Amino acid sequence: MSGGVTSPRGFVANGVSAGIKISGKLDLGLLYSETEAVAAGLFTTNVFKASPVSLSIANLKNETHKAIIVNSGNANCANGLQGDNDAIAMVRQTAKRLGLSEKEVLVASTGIIGHRLPLKNIQKKIPELVSGLSENGGRDFARAILTTDTMNKEATAKLEIGGKIVRIGGAAKGVAMIHPRMEKDGIPLESESGRHATLLGFITTDAAISKAMLEKALLHVVNETFNMISTDGDTSTNDSLFIMANGLAGNERIESDGKDYEAFLKALKGLCMSLAKMLVKDGEGATKLLEISVVGAETDERARILARRISTSNLLKCAIFREDPNWGRVAAAAGSAGVNFNPERTDIYLGAEKVLSNGSSLETFDKIKLKKYLEEKEVFIKVDLKSGKGSATAWTCDLSNEYATINTETSP
Amino acid sequence: MSGGVTSPRGFVANGVSAGIKISGKLDLGLLYSETEAVAAGLFTTNVFKASPVSLSIANLKNETHKAIIVNSGNANCANGLQGDNDAIAMVRQTAKRLGLSEKEVLVASTGIIGHRLPLKNIQKKIPELVSGLSENGGRDFARAILTTDTMNKEATAKLEIGGKIVRIGGAAKGVAMIHPRMEKDGIPLESESGRHATLLGFITTDAAISKAMLEKALLHVVNETFNMISTDGDTSTNDSLFIMANGLAGNERIESDGKDYEAFLKALKGLCMSLAKMLVKDGEGATKLLEISVVGAETDERARILARRISTSNLLKCAIFREDPNWGRVAAAAGSAGVNFNPERTDIYLGAEKVLSNGSSLETFDKIKLKKYLEEKEVFIKVDLKSGKGSATAWTCDLSNEYATINTETSP
Repeated sequence: MSGGVTSPRGFVANGVSAGIKISGKLDLGLLYSETEAVAAGLFTTNVFKASPVSLSIANLKNETHKAIIVNSGNANCANGLQGDNDAIAMVRQTAKRLGLSEKEVLVASTGIIGHRLPLKNIQKKIPELVSGLSENGGRDFARAILTTDTMNKEATAKLEIGGKIVRIGGAAKGVAMIHPRMEKDGIPLESESGRHATLLGFITTDAAISKAMLEKALLHVVNETFNMISTDGDTSTNDSLFIMANGLAGNERIESDGKDYEAFLKALKGLCMSLAKMLVKDGEGATKLLEISVVGAETDERARILARRISTSNLLKCAIFREDPNWGRVAAAAGSAGVNFNPERTDIYLGAEKVLSNGSSLETFDKIKLKKYLEEKEVFIKVDLKSGKGSATAWTCDLSNEYATINTETSP
Repeated sequence: MSGGVTSPRGFVANGVSAGIKISGKLDLGLLYSETEAVAAGLFTTNVFKASPVSLSIANLKNETHKAIIVNSGNANCANGLQGDNDAIAMVRQTAKRLGLSEKEVLVASTGIIGHRLPLKNIQKKIPELVSGLSENGGRDFARAILTTDTMNKEATAKLEIGGKIVRIGGAAKGVAMIHPRMEKDGIPLESESGRHATLLGFITTDAAISKAMLEKALLHVVNETFNMISTDGDTSTNDSLFIMANGLAGNERIESDGKDYEAFLKALKGLCMSLAKMLVKDGEGATKLLEISVVGAETDERARILARRISTSNLLKCAIFREDPNWGRVAAAAGSAGVNFNPERTDIYLGAEKVLSNGSSLETFDKIKLKKYLEEKEVFIKVDLKSGKGSATAWTCDLSNEYATINTETSP
């Protein structure tokens, strides 16, 4: 699917090369709604927060937005006051060129930390970026946000609300430092063992929906999609996920819970899930997608912590790469998540095969079938604690010997 | 240094091949004090705890101990009641052969999870193991406890207490699943983001010291040494660290705090530190040792969490492997540790070179000097929060592209 972000009505986009990346690849993108839109955003909870993150959090207090400017190749993080001023200048010139107030423009950056943003390069390219905005620009936008990604990540969804066709589109990037925990205010979470990541996501929709309901939907969906993926368990300063809704679908405006909101939520979740899985599959050095479900926990939150912890086990990820059914590494990772549970009630499955029953190894399982199963490109692991109704699912990739080779200076 | 554990007076050891490892390498070890000793132990806080761990925790309630039996190649974990019975049988036969009560014998295992312990192989070899005990057996003991380690880890220390020479010796193993958080009772820590590891450590001393003071010393020392190392941030079910003290040095028995205790503590810490660093240096695929100090934190505990989190950053570990001065990965990791601090007061140093000052990149630093520095085999990173007197140091290794190749089924 191409042109994800420009598939809803009224959205145009563009991507150009501003020379931020030495390679000369596209590195500056702009997304624009031709009519006034409401927007919501979620941001990294990292203590070190990049300048564009802080600026977007501030600008999101505005009621309406029309544009998001993004660069790759430089995170504009740990650059002090200079970094803040550079982010402001980037937004200011974009606003001026588009005839908007600064507060209507959001901003994101991804790339190396601690190098000054090449602001002049960016400023020089903004006129071209703006004049080239088009309905066909979604693909270049999706390309301009990439760092070590090997391919564009785009998705679209369509649903009907009250007889009107509503479209949702999205683009995302990030194949390293992917273990997000994004929150509305980006406030660091004390005693939170989660890690964070450079994930950039941009979602557009022509749904008519209030800003408050849009925020609510994004937060709900992110916790079951982007906030449950991990490539390397590592940590970014720049995670940002945006959604803009311009109402051009003409549906009755969604202003509260109900059938219409549920339908929108479901479509949004499907779109985010598909983008999130694309990120994991393209994880640096990845050859397989690994889905980890924890069920039967006392609460969803406990299940979430367990699933997340298992998804960051280097040893498990290596075993999956090598198609080695060493499920003991699942048990060991679960047992060290900082969540107490009863090991003697715990079952573990690799695919459909039960390997651990009530905490005790089932040496009767079919080892040859299991080895064969691990040759698949998508591997499923389930941990059943049989102690409640809490559940959660996390996604990660395997850890290959390409990993240390691929990941370059450009992350996050 | 060879024969670490047999260097104090009155300790003998042995290691044999019982065929637990398919390779035929040594895999069964025995450590024995010819006179009654007091012992202390610290164990993994993993929820999934191997059978030998639970048995050793129980047996440590006895006042005196004389022997520790260890096997490598099989963790005897997740084997249910059968596993518990196998651990008991292993201890029982050792005790019987040595003429001891079962409670005087401690036990440890390391290797693959969820495979039944080949008890018959072990039982068949116990007579040979016992009859071969000798002062020269320390090296074979140290070899018998290894899994994917490429070399023995042994150390000795000597100190004087009240005119008497006191000796301490040790052997350890573990180059994967190394991120221990060992505690006396092995009780899982809720909301603890630490991970755990298959580390086995055996320390002997001829010091005269009470069991209570020995326990106190071990716990104090472990929190600044073994509990601060990490190879892969991953997680074991079998971590066990033992110390036995038989009093043959003839010093006045250490029964309380004071000069003698401090001297013993210092020597014990030096020995544990040197074993801990050997483990990290031999980490699977490792080419460099990385030391991470966090200073100026509000408390030591906050500094510890930060140093530990930085030490598990895959991206940082890859950058160090590739001698890439990408210190932004230090900032990103620190910022996601679940500990709040002021980024605008934070300084970061690579070696002696300050790269971040008050949260802002120092682009003035000497990049060529920095690249040169990273060619060293030992790399030092310091993070100064300038907000208090709390400090901690963690150690890890780099992450090379050999990592995914080396780590095998035998971990933990």
